[in-house]
Amino acid sequence: MSNDRYQQGLDKLMEYTLTSDDNISTHLKISDELEDIAPDIGKYIIEFAYGDIYSREGLTNQQRALVTISSLVTQGTEPQLELHINTGLTAGLSPKEIVESITHLIPYTGFPSVLNALTVAKKVFSMRNVSIDKADTEQKESKKPS
Amino acid sequence: MSNDRYQQGLDKLMEYTLTSDDNISTHLKISDELEDIAPDIGKYIIEFAYGDIYSREGLTNQQRALVTISSLVTQGTEPQLELHINTGLTAGLSPKEIVESITHLIPYTGFPSVLNALTVAKKVFSMRNVSIDKADTEQKESKKPS
Amino acid sequence: MSNDRYQQGLDKLMEYTLTSDDNISTHLKISDELEDIAPDIGKYIIEFAYGDIYSREGLTNQQRALVTISSLVTQGTEPQLELHINTGLTAGLSPKEIVESITHLIPYTGFPSVLNALTVAKKVFSMRNVSIDKADTEQKESKKPS
Amino acid sequence: MSNDRYQQGLDKLMEYTLTSDDNISTHLKISDELEDIAPDIGKYIIEFAYGDIYSREGLTNQQRALVTISSLVTQGTEPQLELHINTGLTAGLSPKEIVESITHLIPYTGFPSVLNALTVAKKVFSMRNVSIDKADTEQKESKKPS
Amino acid sequence: MSNDRYQQGLDKLMEYTLTSDDNISTHLKISDELEDIAPDIGKYIIEFAYGDIYSREGLTNQQRALVTISSLVTQGTEPQLELHINTGLTAGLSPKEIVESITHLIPYTGFPSVLNALTVAKKVFSMRNVSIDKADTEQKESKKPS
Amino acid sequence: MSNDRYQQGLDKLMEYTLTSDDNISTHLKISDELEDIAPDIGKYIIEFAYGDIYSREGLTNQQRALVTISSLVTQGTEPQLELHINTGLTAGLSPKEIVESITHLIPYTGFPSVLNALTVAKKVFSMRNVSIDKADTEQKESKKPS
Repeated sequence: MSNDRYQQGLDKLMEYTLTSDDNISTHLKISDELEDIAPDIGKYIIEFAYGDIYSREGLTNQQRALVTISSLVTQGTEPQLELHINTGLTAGLSPKEIVESITHLIPYTGFPSVLNALTVAKKVFSMRNVSIDKADTEQKESKKPS
Repeated sequence: MSNDRYQQGLDKLMEYTLTSDDNISTHLKISDELEDIAPDIGKYIIEFAYGDIYSREGLTNQQRALVTISSLVTQGTEPQLELHINTGLTAGLSPKEIVESITHLIPYTGFPSVLNALTVAKKVFSMRNVSIDKADTEQKESKKPS
Repeated sequence: MSNDRYQQGLDKLMEYTLTSDDNISTHLKISDELEDIAPDIGKYIIEFAYGDIYSREGLTNQQRALVTISSLVTQGTEPQLELHINTGLTAGLSPKEIVESITHLIPYTGFPSVLNALTVAKKVFSMRNVSIDKADTEQKESKKPS
Repeated sequence: MSNDRYQQGLDKLMEYTLTSDDNISTHLKISDELEDIAPDIGKYIIEFAYGDIYSREGLTNQQRALVTISSLVTQGTEPQLELHINTGLTAGLSPKEIVESITHLIPYTGFPSVLNALTVAKKVFSMRNVSIDKADTEQKESKKPS
Repeated sequence: MSNDRYQQGLDKLMEYTLTSDDNISTHLKISDELEDIAPDIGKYIIEFAYGDIYSREGLTNQQRALVTISSLVTQGTEPQLELHINTGLTAGLSPKEIVESITHLIPYTGFPSVLNALTVAKKVFSMRNVSIDKADTEQKESKKPS
Repeated sequence: MSNDRYQQGLDKLMEYTLTSDDNISTHLKISDELEDIAPDIGKYIIEFAYGDIYSREGLTNQQRALVTISSLVTQGTEPQLELHINTGLTAGLSPKEIVESITHLIPYTGFPSVLNALTVAKKVFSMRNVSIDKADTEQKESKKPS
């Protein structure tokens, strides 16, 4: 049933969502802002992206976050990259893994995309008060898949 | 010393390279083909991409392969994607992890890039005689990082 | 119910699908070819792309085909462009509308993408035995939305 | 004569240009701002884009606007997307048709490009005081091709 | 007058066109092939691209060829890259300048685009019987701007 | 030795770097800002991009700047375009050559990328107090390769 997909998607989405800080970019805030012109967008994100795709077996939440970040660095869509560096941290990627993944892309996208992505990462790390050195702290407040 | 970077890069590259089948796409074959017009390309791939970047700490070989594949699916550069689905398999990603990573990108790149990438994956899996079902077999012949 | 989305998607997809010629590229053939490595892809195309998105109100089938073709010309994903020039013809776009849409993109994508897209269009028109001049003939065998 | 192309282009451009509100993004404002470093840019937009391409037969103004918007959503060039959501409204596309076209692209570009484009659409709709619900109002002040 | 733009464009185009070998990709062959579905395309290439843009002052023919090749490597549109490596050679770029320009892009586009572009360059050099070493030979048969 | 590559890269980089104005975007400022999250990025830019690639023979500094700018206009990565319009001016490209190169790309990328790039160029020219008309002034303060 469709309702099941929505609930499954919402449950999955919450594994990637930090709710303790209102300033952090989340899917729910983005959906809310588009509610008046595109009310179904939030539904598709939850039902299709999280209910159908993220809920599939075969990859961990951290692997999915890594794949997502790598694609967004390559595309250069920065607002979404900010969102998914956040979801990645919440899903259990360490700041170091995120920075290493972006750095790893230099031979594949060149420096410009990587430099812009690192600037976004720096901003997100600052907002979440994590750093390469303080990685341990972050680990504790992230939501690890059980 | 520069020589050290080359040796380190070559060692690292071999962790991603299957040498038992001459039909499989490898960096070494690509470099050889470009030897007469761009003799330094192979050196940069080994020294910079593998010696400097792939040799960094913080990600496993499988994570690096996942990041690489995700970027190439997004870019749509198919000859390189064929190469790196091969390096991913050799580095220890299972066929299922590769297919799941490509499938995961539907919400981020749309269906066209994903369908074209899956067609490339199907071709590579066929050449390497692996499949989603026969994943166990492949695991044995891949080079796992120690 | 999920079953309803699948049936709705399949019905909608058939409005864009020419079944009388086995050589024409269709979603169903693409899904079949990927069946062994990614069996859910066909389901997502039918349920999400056609059941959820194409089934929305507010645009005609021809408008949706126009939007799709414009995006694929811009992306340069040629196998998908071939598929959707076919779906566009079946949905009732005339060959002239398709050529004009591609030509219209010169100021937005430059000549290279447009020239490559016109080459794909020429191939599809030839396979379907339609042309700018024979547009009337094509109109009769296309599936117009009621 | 070249003069004819310019006049034809300017006439065509005005079918897409709202002149009653100085805050709305228009081609003329963009050309003016670049006048000192690239004085011919405005001429090329008017003569080539509008005089040669937009003046061709075979598509309505609304279809051309739809094709343009679809390409710009796919490219992610947001300042130009803002401009052409404006030209689309002026050419007679309803806010709903614009939102539906952007939403339709989810399966072809993924969510990131679509979400960013909807954010631009929301801004433009707000500046022009139109909405999905108030579509009727907008229809009246738009310039319909005769 | 429009006729003047066409003649000016055609004259300029011929400075970039090798007519002594029928196997070499040229704008005229591409236009001919699209004549039946898009008869105006050739006119726009000659009048706008070559008559308006290439005929501007401020850059040499070689600089324009360099700019064109750099954009096409970045876009990955290979048929057009093949065409413009040809126009670049005819305009007086040496094979070495072309290979160096492509190689220079590694830090800006990454290796994949560069490797694919070098493969195209190798094919063109072979068809025109030039090489990095035989650059002197090529210089003699190229059309240098006076 | 690696040290040699760093020194060679730094020397080469300084040929493209204006140090007399702290407001101008430079590689060194970008590296500094990313120092805390990605301390090796600056090293790779200097050693690989400038030490290995920019230090190659076969192209002048101005040609390398032209190639770089053309790729960045095509990619649409604006912060990097701002940086490299600056490095281009410092390497000896005139404002007119830069504007002409961007304008030349209209037939290859379409107007949107070109218009956005010209807006960046206008900003850089203003910050450096140069203009198309005042090109002579700029020439004197730029660093010409000997």
